[in-house]
Amino acid sequence: MCREYVYGGTIASLIDCHSVGTALSNYYKLEGRDIGAAPEIWCVTGRLTVDYLAPTPIDKEIEVRSTIEEVGERKTRVKSRVYSDGIQTAEGEVIAIRVPDSWKNAN
Amino acid sequence: MCREYVYGGTIASLIDCHSVGTALSNYYKLEGRDIGAAPEIWCVTGRLTVDYLAPTPIDKEIEVRSTIEEVGERKTRVKSRVYSDGIQTAEGEVIAIRVPDSWKNAN
Repeated sequence: MCREYVYGGTIASLIDCHSVGTALSNYYKLEGRDIGAAPEIWCVTGRLTVDYLAPTPIDKEIEVRSTIEEVGERKTRVKSRVYSDGIQTAEGEVIAIRVPDSWKNAN
Repeated sequence: MCREYVYGGTIASLIDCHSVGTALSNYYKLEGRDIGAAPEIWCVTGRLTVDYLAPTPIDKEIEVRSTIEEVGERKTRVKSRVYSDGIQTAEGEVIAIRVPDSWKNAN
């Protein structure tokens, strides 16, 4: 039996990254544009919640599937599920915030 | 102005780690024992929530302060706040679960 598991902070990172990427891609899709096309769309994480359902073995392939639950002009709510060998081990929710152009220029 | 910020997944990891460590230390304290003394107390993360309030600059010292909000026999709720230069940039809540001895032996 596997005694080594993926660190919870890494699971959180996977969920964060995949959820924000999904929200971002969807904004491009809604505008009928290719992902990454100029002008760039940026999203940041507003809130991240992770429920750890079971340990995730470190020696098996991990699958993360994200689904858009709600889209607003400025916010997208994404659910992400983490699977190991087809068994769900974590469930995440991310509120992704679309960065306004004014903020991009300010930085 | 700093243009480089700490990745949100790393902020989540800091909160996770410091919160679970706080919950764990408190169980030892409640039992009047030194931290790490045998038999060991283990805790895992049940739920992690992070609210990102502002970007956290990568070039400044980060402070994480955790406070125990609620303690049960099996669960502890911890609030953790992340500060950069004295300004709060993230707020986290962790439900830490005390691992029963039966689980420790099973693994």
